[in-house]
Amino acid sequence: MYRSRPNDKLEDDALRFLSSIDDDKSILYYDIVGSQAHSIMLHEMGHVTSSELKKILSALEEAKKNPTTIRTEEYEDIHEAIEAFVIQRSGMDAGGKMHIARSRNDQVVLDIRMKIRDDINEICAALSNLIQGLVERAKENKQVPMLMYTHLQQAQIGTFSHFLLSYAYGLMRDMERLYLTYHRINQSPLGACAIGGSSIPIDRKRTAMLLGFDSIIKNSIDATSSRDAFLEYTSTLAILTSTLGRIAEDFIIWSTTEFGYVELAESYTSTSSAMPQKKNPDPLELTRSKTAIVTSNLVSMLGIVKALPSGYSRDLQDIKAPLHGSSAITLNTIKMMDHVVRSLQVNKERMRQAASTSYELQWT
Amino acid sequence: MYRSRPNDKLEDDALRFLSSIDDDKSILYYDIVGSQAHSIMLHEMGHVTSSELKKILSALEEAKKNPTTIRTEEYEDIHEAIEAFVIQRSGMDAGGKMHIARSRNDQVVLDIRMKIRDDINEICAALSNLIQGLVERAKENKQVPMLMYTHLQQAQIGTFSHFLLSYAYGLMRDMERLYLTYHRINQSPLGACAIGGSSIPIDRKRTAMLLGFDSIIKNSIDATSSRDAFLEYTSTLAILTSTLGRIAEDFIIWSTTEFGYVELAESYTSTSSAMPQKKNPDPLELTRSKTAIVTSNLVSMLGIVKALPSGYSRDLQDIKAPLHGSSAITLNTIKMMDHVVRSLQVNKERMRQAASTSYELQWT
Amino acid sequence: MYRSRPNDKLEDDALRFLSSIDDDKSILYYDIVGSQAHSIMLHEMGHVTSSELKKILSALEEAKKNPTTIRTEEYEDIHEAIEAFVIQRSGMDAGGKMHIARSRNDQVVLDIRMKIRDDINEICAALSNLIQGLVERAKENKQVPMLMYTHLQQAQIGTFSHFLLSYAYGLMRDMERLYLTYHRINQSPLGACAIGGSSIPIDRKRTAMLLGFDSIIKNSIDATSSRDAFLEYTSTLAILTSTLGRIAEDFIIWSTTEFGYVELAESYTSTSSAMPQKKNPDPLELTRSKTAIVTSNLVSMLGIVKALPSGYSRDLQDIKAPLHGSSAITLNTIKMMDHVVRSLQVNKERMRQAASTSYELQWT
Amino acid sequence: MYRSRPNDKLEDDALRFLSSIDDDKSILYYDIVGSQAHSIMLHEMGHVTSSELKKILSALEEAKKNPTTIRTEEYEDIHEAIEAFVIQRSGMDAGGKMHIARSRNDQVVLDIRMKIRDDINEICAALSNLIQGLVERAKENKQVPMLMYTHLQQAQIGTFSHFLLSYAYGLMRDMERLYLTYHRINQSPLGACAIGGSSIPIDRKRTAMLLGFDSIIKNSIDATSSRDAFLEYTSTLAILTSTLGRIAEDFIIWSTTEFGYVELAESYTSTSSAMPQKKNPDPLELTRSKTAIVTSNLVSMLGIVKALPSGYSRDLQDIKAPLHGSSAITLNTIKMMDHVVRSLQVNKERMRQAASTSYELQWT
Repeated sequence: MYRSRPNDKLEDDALRFLSSIDDDKSILYYDIVGSQAHSIMLHEMGHVTSSELKKILSALEEAKKNPTTIRTEEYEDIHEAIEAFVIQRSGMDAGGKMHIARSRNDQVVLDIRMKIRDDINEICAALSNLIQGLVERAKENKQVPMLMYTHLQQAQIGTFSHFLLSYAYGLMRDMERLYLTYHRINQSPLGACAIGGSSIPIDRKRTAMLLGFDSIIKNSIDATSSRDAFLEYTSTLAILTSTLGRIAEDFIIWSTTEFGYVELAESYTSTSSAMPQKKNPDPLELTRSKTAIVTSNLVSMLGIVKALPSGYSRDLQDIKAPLHGSSAITLNTIKMMDHVVRSLQVNKERMRQAASTSYELQWT
Repeated sequence: MYRSRPNDKLEDDALRFLSSIDDDKSILYYDIVGSQAHSIMLHEMGHVTSSELKKILSALEEAKKNPTTIRTEEYEDIHEAIEAFVIQRSGMDAGGKMHIARSRNDQVVLDIRMKIRDDINEICAALSNLIQGLVERAKENKQVPMLMYTHLQQAQIGTFSHFLLSYAYGLMRDMERLYLTYHRINQSPLGACAIGGSSIPIDRKRTAMLLGFDSIIKNSIDATSSRDAFLEYTSTLAILTSTLGRIAEDFIIWSTTEFGYVELAESYTSTSSAMPQKKNPDPLELTRSKTAIVTSNLVSMLGIVKALPSGYSRDLQDIKAPLHGSSAITLNTIKMMDHVVRSLQVNKERMRQAASTSYELQWT
Repeated sequence: MYRSRPNDKLEDDALRFLSSIDDDKSILYYDIVGSQAHSIMLHEMGHVTSSELKKILSALEEAKKNPTTIRTEEYEDIHEAIEAFVIQRSGMDAGGKMHIARSRNDQVVLDIRMKIRDDINEICAALSNLIQGLVERAKENKQVPMLMYTHLQQAQIGTFSHFLLSYAYGLMRDMERLYLTYHRINQSPLGACAIGGSSIPIDRKRTAMLLGFDSIIKNSIDATSSRDAFLEYTSTLAILTSTLGRIAEDFIIWSTTEFGYVELAESYTSTSSAMPQKKNPDPLELTRSKTAIVTSNLVSMLGIVKALPSGYSRDLQDIKAPLHGSSAITLNTIKMMDHVVRSLQVNKERMRQAASTSYELQWT
Repeated sequence: MYRSRPNDKLEDDALRFLSSIDDDKSILYYDIVGSQAHSIMLHEMGHVTSSELKKILSALEEAKKNPTTIRTEEYEDIHEAIEAFVIQRSGMDAGGKMHIARSRNDQVVLDIRMKIRDDINEICAALSNLIQGLVERAKENKQVPMLMYTHLQQAQIGTFSHFLLSYAYGLMRDMERLYLTYHRINQSPLGACAIGGSSIPIDRKRTAMLLGFDSIIKNSIDATSSRDAFLEYTSTLAILTSTLGRIAEDFIIWSTTEFGYVELAESYTSTSSAMPQKKNPDPLELTRSKTAIVTSNLVSMLGIVKALPSGYSRDLQDIKAPLHGSSAITLNTIKMMDHVVRSLQVNKERMRQAASTSYELQWT
């Protein structure tokens, strides 16, 4: 059974300082699913009887369906909380065995890996929508001549489509990166235990298979100490949000009164009570700031792992917030940009006019 | 009256993306206090009658006492939510005037400044306790010889006190920096309105005085666009947590079995169910990671303001989370370190023995 | 012909501020090779005669062989300097044509892409050596029992090989990432010109083929504005150096007198004149700091591109230093680690002894 | 005498990896001056005779006048190189004593502190010029009405002066911060030696006084391990460059054809050979990127010191490059901005016209 403290008392502020319960909520579901696969394997290897397995699985299923009944606030982390829940429902004889040949150290990495798999899928689906939106708007605006800028100064003449497709190309590379990262995420650490595996016979490939992993991480020190796949994933998101930030900056500039090329749909602007004429492009400004936030989340994670010795250290708990935060921010920003792109009003006349008085045409 | 949108409907995910309500909760109290001072000044300048003022102040006082009755979830930010609360309690005639000659742009900076003032005071009080703890432990250990290390290799011989006082000196400079920063925080932006002040006669010095500010920020563009004082404050916290990180690293190394100089009190260690002999120094490891987190919060803030044009941009909303987060993390980490220092067991015999077999003594 | 300024005079400090000559030296070779391919294509497309081509190629070949004869200090960037060199050797009629249908904006991205290709190859070769070294040392130390640590506290018993192989696994993923990044680097931007391509008929696929690229970047705005592939490459290096940083930290701790598991070869330590017994693990400490430096280079690059509008902006000049710097640092750090690993003395007796008195064995 | 290695041989690539000679050149002068003061004190304390002192001082004076005669390339750092130079000129009997009661660990911190003092003075002088330039231009443009923007959307009407003064106010706070930082920089670490001071009687206050320090850093562990004052200084520069970045962004936007409010003097723009009409605001774009660079230098430094144990570690060598780099970048950027501000052409007519057609006026 998990036990965090030699004695159970911790002063309140120390408990708050040490607790990861808030960050853990996003992996609760995965912790349950991982425990189900682990228990099945334990049964297959003869460490858990059929009847014990039935009790464990039924308690876990209940936890999955009613996550709010898990008394998370009383425990230091989600692993303890779920185990306590299972023991309470299935009895110590059954529930107490769920922990055989497993440690929080391999379990937390397992949970995060399962969550990132789903995050990648969700982000790629949203990205795909956004790219589709860009391509559709590009098709509508194929014939719309538009000035191109370097150094924000008028340069050559192109089309509005040319810009929209340049965004689509960038985002397709972002999706490619996520796709490639998936492979390094999708490897199972389960069975590495605290750091050195277990002397109890287990079948690591079986749990990996049950949970849909491509393969296992062979070396147990590597499995519990390394966070490089998470760094890779987050850097992929930082790059992606920086692609979105460029789109946002273009639209912010083009939607000024002075440029006047595009106008955001009213529902995606804010106004001012004192100056009701204003149409502020708030979603685009927040897209811009998200680039800085996801970058800083990556900095946080690289900083946390910097020069940590091998073997789990509690520092690693603190990568959960920037990691899961980056997933959520990226997903929401993509969806917001999708709304903005699809509802954007294009001022073709203004584009045409600006292009017609440009130096390039006069010169030809 | 505040009004965020041309029409009131926003799709749910857009609303979530744009909303700052969660980050705003930490400034709710200050927003109320700021509104009280502003209303008093408006009355003194003849824009609000006695009876209106009474109604406004009474509604605000109610909001202060029962903050949960403010329906924050229906509004995009706290300023709107509080205004709506006041209007609902005091009527549109009175409550609607609270907004005269004020904008969210000066109001949010005011609120943050008031909050940081309190944060500085609280952090300095905690720092002062910790420094006192270090000095007390230094006094107890004056005579305890201890090896000093460079490159983590044994170097000269000193005392354990020598180390404890070196931490105290560093933390005193951290406090000095906070003290100096206070001055640049404690200047009132109120009255700068959206960006260019107001044509309605107001008394900026009066609200500044009522709210305990040293002076006003004279230039209204500066008052609403600049965030340098917040960057300064957060960099001060990043440096402070890096001082704490050094203490943590020393204690982590010294509490290994191999060094064995110190031992953490049982209540501040974690153990392992499989290896019950373990005394893991979790609070110190988390102190180490906090350095990375506060650093990355600073990166986030510097990134957000990077190359923003003058005038409020919605990007600035996103500095609230890393800013307030840094205050909370720093405060909790100092308190945790204070517990650790005061409860630390010092293995004097081991220190003495290691010092006695060192190269320096053999050589003399 | 390239021309940076409307008039040729720039005050000295402005010139220094604007110049990228120092950062450009690392792409000089690639700029020449790119110009050769471009000139050949221009000839094939009928824009340059055989005799002109011969003159151009011969001047470029001379530049390649004697790069110091190029008067870089007189020009603002390497592109101007090389063009001036070619014109001076081959005459304006020939040399002046080298610039047809090309801009610094596509040229600089081309040069950097060619350089990174070579950097990836060199880094992977060095990585491969280091991995081989780790595996060899692992083979030698298969039977050496060693304590494993979590939270830097003694945990289970493993072997020294187990650690060495955990490093090798991590570095193999680092190599995998570099291999995958290569694909997004190896696409030719040439022909995108300033931002919108050229009205002069050129063959983009031909230059791509001549220079060994997999394909061309189709969209010209994308080709000149995007830096995501460079961000991806640098994040790969940041992750790689963080793997190295973990190895360094392990060895630093294990080479303390207190742990005593390993000893660095004398040539890779420093000593102290006052304390000649010291063997400071300087290369490992610098490996640790390099993690922070490459991370910060990535931060610099992500910060520079943050919210830049589409189209080349001069800001992008400043990504060259952190980009090329990261390549050099990473390569040197890998080589240094290779020396350290191969020359490391392993204190098997100490490892055995520590393992034998550990809790785990006593308990069994 | 300093001695870096047990034996003098180091493989070339290892030497390059370990060497700090390039970064050290900026502190060469200060190392000489510090050695002069130290030698005088040693003489006063009776450790060096008059005649020895004369020889040492004369050799150091020669080094100061002809720094290029110091054979830096043969040594691992500047301290060794200068000592070798002095010994070679003054003989081992005299020159060998310069090192009494001193270590590279206190010496390098001393040198950096002296350099930063000068850097602060130089940067403040340049800042003062720039502020003066802004105020002068503000005086000229007092009567020029100009639109103010929030969210880059037209808001209230102000004057061009109003903007220029908002910059001046921000820069004055930047200067204030530098002034306050000076105090924590201006404390002498000399005499702390490697980490624990020296058993040889020295007078720390005397060298501090000779070198113009306010006071000494009392605790020797603190003096050699802490880098917080350098972090504070660099964060001050990061904030300062972010103020400059805002000015740059405003001017970049205002100098577009579409806004047309200001025009950069020709000598501070670049053009394009293909599009000679262009006036690209390169110095402003590079000002923008410098914000990202100085921020990342701070990240580098915070990352390097993160969780380092007490006592000098070689990692600290790597803070020199980002530290001195930040000073140079900041100084050059301020000077560049000064040129730009003083030579900026203000398009008053355009400002007036835009203001006159604005919503605010129509509405009144």
